[in-house]
Order: sequence, then structure tokens, then C-alpha cells
Amino acid sequence: MSTPGTIWGVGLGPGDPELLSVKADRLLRGARHVAFFRKAGRQGQARRIVEGMLRPDVTEIAMEYPVTTEIPLTDPRYNEMLSVFYETCTDRLRALSDAGEDLVIVCEGDPFFYGSFMHLHSRLCDHCPVQVVPAITGMSAAWTATDAPITWGDDVLSTLMGTLPEDMLAEHMTRADALVIMKIGRNIEKIRRALRRAGRYDAAWLVEYASMPNQTVQRLSEAEDKITPYFSIILVHGQGRRP
Amino acid sequence: MSTPGTIWGVGLGPGDPELLSVKADRLLRGARHVAFFRKAGRQGQARRIVEGMLRPDVTEIAMEYPVTTEIPLTDPRYNEMLSVFYETCTDRLRALSDAGEDLVIVCEGDPFFYGSFMHLHSRLCDHCPVQVVPAITGMSAAWTATDAPITWGDDVLSTLMGTLPEDMLAEHMTRADALVIMKIGRNIEKIRRALRRAGRYDAAWLVEYASMPNQTVQRLSEAEDKITPYFSIILVHGQGRRP
Repeated sequence: MSTPGTIWGVGLGPGDPELLSVKADRLLRGARHVAFFRKAGRQGQARRIVEGMLRPDVTEIAMEYPVTTEIPLTDPRYNEMLSVFYETCTDRLRALSDAGEDLVIVCEGDPFFYGSFMHLHSRLCDHCPVQVVPAITGMSAAWTATDAPITWGDDVLSTLMGTLPEDMLAEHMTRADALVIMKIGRNIEKIRRALRRAGRYDAAWLVEYASMPNQTVQRLSEAEDKITPYFSIILVHGQGRRP
Repeated sequence: MSTPGTIWGVGLGPGDPELLSVKADRLLRGARHVAFFRKAGRQGQARRIVEGMLRPDVTEIAMEYPVTTEIPLTDPRYNEMLSVFYETCTDRLRALSDAGEDLVIVCEGDPFFYGSFMHLHSRLCDHCPVQVVPAITGMSAAWTATDAPITWGDDVLSTLMGTLPEDMLAEHMTRADALVIMKIGRNIEKIRRALRRAGRYDAAWLVEYASMPNQTVQRLSEAEDKITPYFSIILVHGQGRRP
């Protein structure tokens, strides 16, 4: 029996290929097998970031979500379908590891920060060697894009998902000094209302496609009433102690 | 008059030189002038990370804090001394930029996330071209070190500084799903009490020197009663939705 191969969960960062870590860059360029998630019929953001970096003889493993936003998160079928999907992916990746092959799973952002990779990790880590490489988060790229620090001194930073109920959003928005709101998409009107209730609306910024060529940065109050991409980020900067 | 040089605020990430971004690595290896903060008489963590990467003809600019933990933050002299210090640093860096020289200020972690660089940025950005390169945060390296995701689904993550009052710590610890607590050092007993009051103590992990050769990971409840380094990180993982 061969030694099992290592499964690397490699964070790619926010989108700019120069914002990969040196370690991620090295692992990717040497990888014989590269796996990534994508929506069916799309290239996928993770795969797009690594374009031009892979070995000519690489095996690519596209893991296509059976569902993304077509079914609400609250529908029990959503969890069932994703659970089956993650099991199928796990079997495929584990077979490679069992055959002694190392492989790299590329992940947008940081693998352990609200990432899909985590659902593979929890299913794989008791069976194969799994190593995780952290990465620059989308939120770091977003506050860098606003050209202003997100937190000073003792500021409390809360990271909130736009999928939360409005009351909960408004409560956390009131209590924290600095805010990062992710998973925007169709939740944007709810997020606007919650920010207004918390008195933070005028201080909020909307960043789309942080660190990518089509990056935009604008005050949320000046952004048109439109559906913004799911991976947009809304920020409110802290104003804490500064000498 | 020459074109002013660009001042780069370059995040180095958590400590492992392989966790620099490709962009940070490129900028550093090419830099003619590299500035960094350090405590007087020490090499400094930022300078240590880039050891062996700098050009042989580099000019190094050590910016030595006049005070770190010798005076409490609440003492007005603390802010005065640091303010004078940052002004002096700014004058020195701005003179280089005015002379047409590019320079790199290296920063531990991410420059806009609780970093000292921010105090230079706010003083420089109206006078010189300043560019910021985001980086992997210490907290990303810390949760990667625990080998478990920090946040799932809709988890609320709160980032708290150990310098906050105990009541405020306990309140935020109660309300958030996942916690990152930084600036530990002498605040550790206060943080332990706040975690106990919030019912989160048994779930807390202590990570010292994340991503560095002397990294340690242990349950906080099993850590000895000792003063841990200021840059240690305490984590409580979220337990949110997972298919």
C-alpha cells in the first residue's frame, strides 16, 4: 500500500494573483491535481485566479455545486443536496489521496473563514493527511481598497453575514465599532435598513470585486439601488484611539 | 523637482516568510529603502521576518518606539510621546519620498488591521503617494494553527482587544458566535474572567507565535497561568450551519 497523498487546502486570497502567498504560489505551480468549486456552467472564480499558473500536465477537478441561490438556505432540500455533493467530492478526492497522489484544493479567500473548503475538510481530516494554507481575506482587500484602516486602538470589529435576520444585523451593527458585512447579493436592501436603524448607513462603503481589475469603491448611500454581486463587501470603519 | 517616490505600506503577514504575498515578496526584494518599527534594543519582528530577503545595498530605517508597555495606555503621556514619535518618523520618510526615492514600510500582519503603520499612513497620505499591500492576518494563521474553521454559515465573528474593560469583553463574548481576542499579554487574567462570565472559557484556544517555528496551540483552560506574549491570540470557534 502506498503512503497516502496530502490534500492541501490552499487559500488564494481575494482575487489578484499577486496576492497569493509565496507558499500558495509554489504549491499551485507544482501541483499535479488541482480541485476547485464552481457553479455549473461557469469557469469559477478560484479557477480564474490561477489561470496561467498550472502545470501543462495538471489534472483539473471541477466540483460543481448542485445549487447556489436557486433554493433558499432555509429549505431543508438545500442542506440535503449540499451534503450529498460534499460527500461525492470527498470520495473523489480521498481516492486520489489513497492512491498516493498529493492534490491541491484551491479556495477563494482564506480556507477556514466562511469557505466551502471547510465542508470537505471536516469530512477528510480523519482519513487523509490534510494541510491548510491561510490567505488574505476578501475583507482585507476591501478595506485596503477604501484606502483607510478598518480598526484603530481598541475598536471592536464584527463580521456579519447579510443572510442574518434584519433585527440581529441591526443589533450587532449598533454595538460594534467597525463592521464588515459579507454575503450581500439579494440581501442588500435588508442590510441597508439594518444599517439605517443602527445609525451607521452614512458611514458605510460598498466594495465590489476587491483587488480585481473591475474593483469599485463607493459610499453605500451613493450606490445605485441595484443587486450587487454576492461577494461584494460592505464596510464601516472604526474610529478608535489614535495618537 | 523630481517626481515624489511612492511609500509602500507592505503587510508581511503572521510571521512565516512563505506567507508573504507574491507582491510583498517582489517589492521587498527590490526595495532600496526599507523601514520598520521595533522596540528599542530589539531586532523587531517585522525585520526578523524579512531576514535574508533584502538587497545588499538596502538602506534600513529602524523606527524605535519611545514606549511600548512601560506606561499605561490611559496615561496622557503615552499618546503625547507616540504622537511626537510618529511625526518624527513621518518627516524622515517624507524627505525620502520628496527626494524621489521609493520606500517600503514593512508591517506585521495586515497594515490596516490594528497596525502601527496606520499612524504613519494618516500623516503621509495627503503629502506623498502611498500604496498599501494587504496581508494574511495573525488571526488567520492562528485559526489555521488550530486546524479548525473559525466561522461557518451565518456565524457572527467579533474581534476584541484584550485591552478593553472586562464588562465590555464579557458582553461581546456573550453575543458573538466566534471570537478572536488579540493584545493579550498582561490582560490574560481579565480575558479569562470575561470568557468565564460569557460561558465561553472551555471552548477557548490559545495560540502563541502563529505560523512561526515556536508556534504553540493549546486549550486556554489547559494553559498554565503565565503571562503569554502580547501577540498571542485567543480563539473561540463558531459552530454555525454546515451541510
